Amino acid sequence: MDFSNEALISGVKAGNLRSVSRLITLAENGVPRARTVMAELYRSGGHAHVIGVTGSPGAGKSTLVDQLASTFRKDGKKVAILAIDPTSPFSGGAVLGDRIRMVKTAEDDTIFIRSMATRGALGGLSRGTLDAVQILDAAGFDVIFVETVGVGQAEVDIVRTADTCVVVLVPGMGDSVQAIKAGILEIADLFVINKADRDGADMLHKDIRVLLSLAEYEEGSFKPPILRTIATEGSGVSEVVESLGEHTRWLSSSKEGKKRRLKILEERVMKIASEILYEKLAQVAHDRVAGLIQDCFEKRTDPYAVVEKLVGEVLSGNDKTE
Amino acid sequence: MDFSNEALISGVKAGNLRSVSRLITLAENGVPRARTVMAELYRSGGHAHVIGVTGSPGAGKSTLVDQLASTFRKDGKKVAILAIDPTSPFSGGAVLGDRIRMVKTAEDDTIFIRSMATRGALGGLSRGTLDAVQILDAAGFDVIFVETVGVGQAEVDIVRTADTCVVVLVPGMGDSVQAIKAGILEIADLFVINKADRDGADMLHKDIRVLLSLAEYEEGSFKPPILRTIATEGSGVSEVVESLGEHTRWLSSSKEGKKRRLKILEERVMKIASEILYEKLAQVAHDRVAGLIQDCFEKRTDPYAVVEKLVGEVLSGNDKTE
Repeated sequence: MDFSNEALISGVKAGNLRSVSRLITLAENGVPRARTVMAELYRSGGHAHVIGVTGSPGAGKSTLVDQLASTFRKDGKKVAILAIDPTSPFSGGAVLGDRIRMVKTAEDDTIFIRSMATRGALGGLSRGTLDAVQILDAAGFDVIFVETVGVGQAEVDIVRTADTCVVVLVPGMGDSVQAIKAGILEIADLFVINKADRDGADMLHKDIRVLLSLAEYEEGSFKPPILRTIATEGSGVSEVVESLGEHTRWLSSSKEGKKRRLKILEERVMKIASEILYEKLAQVAHDRVAGLIQDCFEKRTDPYAVVEKLVGEVLSGNDKTE
Repeated sequence: MDFSNEALISGVKAGNLRSVSRLITLAENGVPRARTVMAELYRSGGHAHVIGVTGSPGAGKSTLVDQLASTFRKDGKKVAILAIDPTSPFSGGAVLGDRIRMVKTAEDDTIFIRSMATRGALGGLSRGTLDAVQILDAAGFDVIFVETVGVGQAEVDIVRTADTCVVVLVPGMGDSVQAIKAGILEIADLFVINKADRDGADMLHKDIRVLLSLAEYEEGSFKPPILRTIATEGSGVSEVVESLGEHTRWLSSSKEGKKRRLKILEERVMKIASEILYEKLAQVAHDRVAGLIQDCFEKRTDPYAVVEKLVGEVLSGNDKTE
């Protein structure tokens, strides 16, 4: 198969899944020509609804996403799922690959599913995912789910770049309210109480409502609904789909929605830029950092001097790739 | 009180808590002279045992840390606790301040407790904390706890810069094994099963043991023990203290321990350097990014061109502070 830039561009635009997969891989690996292709594709995109889904581990996010994806699919939409796997800090590979493969064989094969590895390195997480979202967008996908594991800062960062952010919680896990407090309250456009037949669903509902009542919403902003699902049985799923639609309409038709979309684009740009800078730092550090650290260790220098040296070299364009 | 550079240096070296607090605040706010002072202090440090504590929300980390801190304190050690609060992405402030204040009044006042806010910005989390650790080290603290909320990538990143990493899990929460898989297995030096009187403690113990048996440990590396506690009653706490001691001895006396310490120092340096680069990017973007994003939005340009522009300006030293 032809994977020249021109072939990739026309392949992606035509929605060819092999072209899509290949370009995502090129982008993930930071191959320079990927960026040329991506810039070219940008003008074809901007139509997809990007839905970030986050929540505690064990909350049933994957099941819910699969159900939502099937519902959109039945409705004739082209659907993709990007599952963000935490990267093993040592091996650099994704650790939850098993789940992905499982879904892949069980599901409707016209749902595009891909597991994205987070990187061990600081901030490496988002760039590959953002690129993948844009590629899928250019390929004509209508709905793109970005599903995360965990509720740490990195997850929050990634979900902030979605158009709509769904926070999934379950009753009876001690962590619910802590999870809400942990920075995700303010990014949620939609709350879903999953496993809503469990004890404690009402209490959790009340807790979220109280927290929401404390938040200040500007005139015209979207007030997050609180929905209940039992994802394993599909119950409540169509209500979530409906709320997602309302949020999209808000995004595309209101002044505040437009402001939000500009903000999202800004987040994406800043994230990609910061990751490029980190890569330059890693290049500069590559050969020399071990020696410099040894000097620190033996107190011949100090970490701040080493930092200054490395940063100085990045800023003077002293890395080896140029 | 005199807070000149000289006064701060001598104050911190003498263990004066007001000097310590002031310097942490200066470092957190990125005041340039803080770095001069920190570099000066570096040679006075290197004696503290930095213990990172992570685990699911609701696992009882805070209670365990309080118990461990008290035990070290009774043993005559100078103890500090840095509690990493996830930052509200919107307000930029820490969200769990309440817990911190509670402990502060209830505890022995000779334990230094400080809540460190993570930043909304990518990667902003670690620098303030790393600086605080080094300041406390220079001030003669023997044991410094770094306690995190959540198990996301950012938390993993921060705990990787600790000398010893404790992972706290609880039985009967569906997320236990997922949490272990989510990248923390390989950073754990010590597993603690807290609330060990609950159903499922044996099964969790077995799960961890199986996962550990699958990991490959190099000759001479430290094999993580699995300990059980009921932190609210103080049960099992002394065994944890003992294991922490074993890990310190391994770090300071073995060849592999030394390698690990070099690695930790490298992580710290790389993290600080990357955050400085991010700050430069934020400075460059500050005034112009809104306009550039508007251009993207209206497809007069594309995000990749904007990224290139911003990165190019950082690398050519075009920011306003210089």
